[in-house]
Amino acid sequence: PNDLFFVRNHMPVPNLDERKHFLEVNGLGIKRGINLSVNDLKNKFEPVKITSTIQCAGNRRNDMNKFKKVQGLMWTGTAISNAEWTGCRLRDVLISAGINPNDKEIKHVQFEGADMDMTANKYGASIPFDKAMSPEVLIAYEMNGEPLPRDHGYPLRIIAPGIVGARQVKWLTCIKTSEEESTSHWQRKDYKAMPSNINIGDPLPFDSVPSIQEYPVQSAICVPTPNTKISRDTENIVVEGYAWSGGGRGIIRVEVSADGGENWKCAELEQAKGQDSEHMWAWTLWRLEIEIPEKAKENGHFELICKATDRGYNTQPEDACGIWNVRGLLHNAWHRVDVTIF
Amino acid sequence: PNDLFFVRNHMPVPNLDERKHFLEVNGLGIKRGINLSVNDLKNKFEPVKITSTIQCAGNRRNDMNKFKKVQGLMWTGTAISNAEWTGCRLRDVLISAGINPNDKEIKHVQFEGADMDMTANKYGASIPFDKAMSPEVLIAYEMNGEPLPRDHGYPLRIIAPGIVGARQVKWLTCIKTSEEESTSHWQRKDYKAMPSNINIGDPLPFDSVPSIQEYPVQSAICVPTPNTKISRDTENIVVEGYAWSGGGRGIIRVEVSADGGENWKCAELEQAKGQDSEHMWAWTLWRLEIEIPEKAKENGHFELICKATDRGYNTQPEDACGIWNVRGLLHNAWHRVDVTIF
Repeated sequence: PNDLFFVRNHMPVPNLDERKHFLEVNGLGIKRGINLSVNDLKNKFEPVKITSTIQCAGNRRNDMNKFKKVQGLMWTGTAISNAEWTGCRLRDVLISAGINPNDKEIKHVQFEGADMDMTANKYGASIPFDKAMSPEVLIAYEMNGEPLPRDHGYPLRIIAPGIVGARQVKWLTCIKTSEEESTSHWQRKDYKAMPSNINIGDPLPFDSVPSIQEYPVQSAICVPTPNTKISRDTENIVVEGYAWSGGGRGIIRVEVSADGGENWKCAELEQAKGQDSEHMWAWTLWRLEIEIPEKAKENGHFELICKATDRGYNTQPEDACGIWNVRGLLHNAWHRVDVTIF
Repeated sequence: PNDLFFVRNHMPVPNLDERKHFLEVNGLGIKRGINLSVNDLKNKFEPVKITSTIQCAGNRRNDMNKFKKVQGLMWTGTAISNAEWTGCRLRDVLISAGINPNDKEIKHVQFEGADMDMTANKYGASIPFDKAMSPEVLIAYEMNGEPLPRDHGYPLRIIAPGIVGARQVKWLTCIKTSEEESTSHWQRKDYKAMPSNINIGDPLPFDSVPSIQEYPVQSAICVPTPNTKISRDTENIVVEGYAWSGGGRGIIRVEVSADGGENWKCAELEQAKGQDSEHMWAWTLWRLEIEIPEKAKENGHFELICKATDRGYNTQPEDACGIWNVRGLLHNAWHRVDVTIF
């Protein structure tokens, strides 16, 4: 349901009318820019449906903050959602505007939204040209079969599957091909995971750190929730959660431990139909019923841990010590939930 | 130099003559198979040069074995090399054989080599069709500007940048488009990283584990070598090594610690020209001069550690506890070298 999809805005939500909304397409390799109405996008281009997960770069930041203090909104593991999107392919629109798919000068495709701050500075981001020309990238006008909700970018947004949420610009007004990335604050001065030797208060070396595009492999336990208490005579517990990775790398395995990582069991995976393991844009939901270890009853509690492996055999790190960064981005260490026994 | 490139064969090295060697191309979507001589490949198709790293799935297996016993050849960190390859694009050859680049039935492209075991069972492997149609995948006939050396596949081999070495079939005799993976032992019954709950002696659940294709992010220290001894009055030490990741994900950062991972410094990166960070097929060489910590002199030794981050912000795990697998494949934990102070 659309109202359960997580919301992450950077500025006030614009109030737009699709009948009066136009999308401008221009830039490098385009002789004459074009303006498209929402109806043009719906009627002049093949409609495509794709199920794709969007994750905020700050998902699970609170966990990284527990390891060592970071700066940002303290998201738990809920800054991620999955939906079916309908729209036209960005590549079809770019080609109709006159770009050559093999243009070697175009390196990035920039997006601008209608949302702006008090100085009229608009939200912007970009993705690499190769990705923009991939068939899964959409200019979306529907979410789960209905017009995009206002919070999720009505009337138009970018859906760039496998890429971090910050590049999937909402309330889309302008697309520009370019030799360079978007010059927006969010592309150039934020959403970059700094090296671990950069601490709070240090100058941030933005120019030497690439913008986040693809996301590393992630998973989290949703059931049981933190602070769950179970009775001493319970033998098994059902553990459920999500897993997802960037770049379309499908989840090939989710493992769960109930004894602090000594023993692991593979969970059952539930994946959207019609995807293959190299183009898996939707999250994997997983489930496992696991035995509660004897020791847990003595200790009065136990810790559940999950970790996922993606198609590139990337795995999640055990803790934040190798990935800590001052803005708390891309936290994907093993997820842990402590359960109390009474 | 070609004789420094690491060698990994599965069976005796064939002795072939390029004047008598033919490559057969057939399979799904090809009406009439074709046979190409080495001269056909050199003269009828555009020659392409690409610098690409090949890494054995067992590289650094000895390190994983130290964590917990595994099975296989005990490679140190040397089962990886880098070279410039010349050949024609696999996609050009497939298209000339009549396949439709958008064929939805073809899922894999299978390769067969001339090397065989005593029962005439030939070496074989496959890669996904999408990858096979990517412009970087070559049927190579030259290495560093000279004909392929016999050990490296003379007269023809597959170069599939970003993919594990085992799929880059040498002494290539046959290419076959198919709806399924190669049925060879090495595709179906080996080169799969098992879940960590599978131990030595357990039955191996080959069917539920995908074949390794892309490699996770890797790095290792080459200088100083293990067992290096330095004198007590040395203040700094130069650390050098390699880093590489699968899928063309460029190395964006290599960090080095001389105090067991408490403090890290970023190394200088040296990368082949003409690559971008989403299509980086060659390894990154790196170098850092780092101060020897005071404590090291008290202890009589210290440990250097390196770890790399790739363009998808994947990082190496701290140790093998989350990636251990019974065959010791894809070991990419932080690499450590102990240095003695006298």
